[in-house]
Amino acid sequence: MTAYQQLSSRFHRLHQLSHLQAMVSWDGATMMPSGGNQARANAMAELGVIIHQQMAATDLSELFKQAKKESLEPWQAANLHEMHNSWQKTNVLPEDLVREKSLAGAKCEHEWRSQRGENNWAGFAENLKPVVELTRKEAEIRAKATGCSRYDALLNVFEPGMTTEKLDKIFGQVKSWLPELIQKVQQKQKAEALIQPLIVPQGPFPVAAQESLGRDVMGLLGFDFNRGRLDISMHPFCGGVPEDVRITTRYDEADFTQSLMGIVHETGHARYEQNLPLEWISQPVARARSMGIHESQSLFFEMQLGRHPGFLELILPKIKQHLTDQSALSLENLQTLYTQVNPGNIRVDADEVTYPAHVILRYEIEKALIEGEMEVDDIPAVWNQKMQQYLGLNTEGNFKDGPMQDIHWTDGAIGYFPSYTLGAMYAAQQFSTIRKQLPNVDQMIAKGDLAPIFDWLQQNIWSQASRYDTDTLIEKATGETLNPEYFRQHLENRYL
Amino acid sequence: MTAYQQLSSRFHRLHQLSHLQAMVSWDGATMMPSGGNQARANAMAELGVIIHQQMAATDLSELFKQAKKESLEPWQAANLHEMHNSWQKTNVLPEDLVREKSLAGAKCEHEWRSQRGENNWAGFAENLKPVVELTRKEAEIRAKATGCSRYDALLNVFEPGMTTEKLDKIFGQVKSWLPELIQKVQQKQKAEALIQPLIVPQGPFPVAAQESLGRDVMGLLGFDFNRGRLDISMHPFCGGVPEDVRITTRYDEADFTQSLMGIVHETGHARYEQNLPLEWISQPVARARSMGIHESQSLFFEMQLGRHPGFLELILPKIKQHLTDQSALSLENLQTLYTQVNPGNIRVDADEVTYPAHVILRYEIEKALIEGEMEVDDIPAVWNQKMQQYLGLNTEGNFKDGPMQDIHWTDGAIGYFPSYTLGAMYAAQQFSTIRKQLPNVDQMIAKGDLAPIFDWLQQNIWSQASRYDTDTLIEKATGETLNPEYFRQHLENRYL
Repeated sequence: MTAYQQLSSRFHRLHQLSHLQAMVSWDGATMMPSGGNQARANAMAELGVIIHQQMAATDLSELFKQAKKESLEPWQAANLHEMHNSWQKTNVLPEDLVREKSLAGAKCEHEWRSQRGENNWAGFAENLKPVVELTRKEAEIRAKATGCSRYDALLNVFEPGMTTEKLDKIFGQVKSWLPELIQKVQQKQKAEALIQPLIVPQGPFPVAAQESLGRDVMGLLGFDFNRGRLDISMHPFCGGVPEDVRITTRYDEADFTQSLMGIVHETGHARYEQNLPLEWISQPVARARSMGIHESQSLFFEMQLGRHPGFLELILPKIKQHLTDQSALSLENLQTLYTQVNPGNIRVDADEVTYPAHVILRYEIEKALIEGEMEVDDIPAVWNQKMQQYLGLNTEGNFKDGPMQDIHWTDGAIGYFPSYTLGAMYAAQQFSTIRKQLPNVDQMIAKGDLAPIFDWLQQNIWSQASRYDTDTLIEKATGETLNPEYFRQHLENRYL
Repeated sequence: MTAYQQLSSRFHRLHQLSHLQAMVSWDGATMMPSGGNQARANAMAELGVIIHQQMAATDLSELFKQAKKESLEPWQAANLHEMHNSWQKTNVLPEDLVREKSLAGAKCEHEWRSQRGENNWAGFAENLKPVVELTRKEAEIRAKATGCSRYDALLNVFEPGMTTEKLDKIFGQVKSWLPELIQKVQQKQKAEALIQPLIVPQGPFPVAAQESLGRDVMGLLGFDFNRGRLDISMHPFCGGVPEDVRITTRYDEADFTQSLMGIVHETGHARYEQNLPLEWISQPVARARSMGIHESQSLFFEMQLGRHPGFLELILPKIKQHLTDQSALSLENLQTLYTQVNPGNIRVDADEVTYPAHVILRYEIEKALIEGEMEVDDIPAVWNQKMQQYLGLNTEGNFKDGPMQDIHWTDGAIGYFPSYTLGAMYAAQQFSTIRKQLPNVDQMIAKGDLAPIFDWLQQNIWSQASRYDTDTLIEKATGETLNPEYFRQHLENRYL
């Protein structure tokens, strides 16, 4: 066996362990009764250690050296690059830190589930502090190994190639036009509401009916139910493995619109996973390119496609069929419903115009936390100050809808938030390219002729997996690297 | 660290891996879409390899030698004994044999799924022969290592301490009275039916209603939903881990009685698991004592308690509340329904009176197979002869409802069948002891005062786990070792 083949075989085995990790994590979020948490955390920590040990095998370093000298096909070379990145990312951390962080995160998350409802910041902060402390240690070790800043080192775990420098520039631009855009859109929507007031659909919409509507729309979007599931969790996500993709949502019987669009969002993630290249599936090169590219697929589905007037026209009969017909369910009113812009406290409920403000706020706080410019106890005050500045909202004392609303920091997933807005930007850029290549795409969507769109995504994004770095992937797909102007144009076109 | 502590720490880690194995197996039987099967099989195989490697660590042998010289508390000494048994059981077999047997079993089971429907004995026998051959080899190796007979060596995998000598005596006694008892009960029930014909409840009984009835009854039986779940699977089972016990059932909308009593059965397994000693939970000594003792808990719940007239009286209002009221749902008719005795071909459908005949037949055949006194080709004739002798049924040519009905032999799980009837006997003996200690137990059950019964099980069985060998456990609990007379008395009291 060549060194490359030996490495490939090692990562094939690691893939099996990731399968277990993914499935048991899914179970923890969807099925596990709360009393099972401690035993589960221990089992997951042990699995983490075993994966870490396999990654830390002393001969891997030599195998990588040898493999780099071997003659490889392009996909193999890309795979070697991804194997090496994956190895370095994991191997740089000491085993103890991995275990401690996993346990601290599990404890913080588990208690957060009840603390959030109680608005118990003090209790949450006690658990968050060790998570942040361990993540700082992680950042320091990663930074030393890669020669970048501490926050950049974390960012690169989720978004290889991204830097604080690039992000500061991109987010700086957004901050320069976003507050004004939000104001303009709100003024416009207020004026429109005077002429044609929004009608809120009247529930209850039973969970079972919403679920069957969701499944119907997932089918329309090409979700493969033979290799996946839809379930319920407190915090919606797309999990599982490419061969068995598990998405979740949560239902509110008073409001079907959130769960429906949530399902469209997760289906975007799911189709990316379900269409990663099967012949490479156990290898790192077959993984999704980055969190930002992953989010570009969910936001492509939710924002570019899902809130497209043509798509709403397409699914309106399904909504009426599974739920009920009522005056609120006219096409015009549904479009108005799905394009309302209202600054609010909750990121996951935010519309696509105000959403970047939520992300920029979190980015600025987590960066300061990691760089040691801020402490956990400072979060609520800074949060409130930035919410006032970006969205004009006072969050003083409201921890549960403030810094306790998200699961990311509780888990120690610091460096992740920017991916959401990068995803929105990549999605806008992708759709803009498709529009150039399929000039009548708007009519096609309304007619349900979605295959050419999915084919484009399949060809340019899904099947490419991690074959190229992010910049190259996007440049090959759209003709240029990330350009936030497409996102701005998209927002202005839709909302002004 | 002492050698004992090192061993304990190794088994603590193995426990975490068993957690993953249990949870992912549960998922495979309850949640997994069929397209995920191949990836799942690969992942489980890899986990199996890792567990095997940890068990095969070369220093364990020396650690066991040292630990035996160390001074240990009684629970620790019992734990060391269980660790050693567990290690020896796994380690004594050569890897090649394990793999070959696993492959032969998988092939036999896979083809059995279609062969059974086709009544294709010849095809099935071709695949069963290598399974039996490899199990004979396994038995020989295990027998050499432990100094017992070949069949005893297999029996001990499931039922430590049990021997052919004991079983022959026990089953010999049963055979001396069972055929006559079955005849008498049938005559009695025929006569009763002339006076008061059985009324079959008329469905449909919706799955959701049966499920809520099941949950209600599980609550009554003390199932801890904070550390467990109820789901659906094709073959009902109790899985998961003690901290998160997952039971399953299957529903037939035309007949609620099977799923209801199935849930009661699995709840017996579940309470045992949920009440194993928490402070030892990651150690082998905290595991259930044996398959027979496990089955004694499920059969205590299903047969001793579940079909007790007082218990049926207790749950009858719940049945009416969740399902529907109808004339079939009188207490008398429900009792008649749940105590019908009818010799039939299928073991899993058998009542508690005829069930031992099914087990004894299988025990006699599998023992002869392993000891080399019989060949696979002889099975159908012997099966038919014994079915005629024990149950008065002719199975000639009916292979699918004869030797092809169970999955145990196809998988190579020879030595397991006796546990079913041992469980029924242990359960009767336990209930008889409780009756002596709580003379008004019948009235207590009807009133729903079940706590003293559960307390007895908790104190005498559940909390003892593998602290003692089976004989000692049962002697401490009931004052004597296994005595099949209690089972006979139970059947005669209930059915004559």
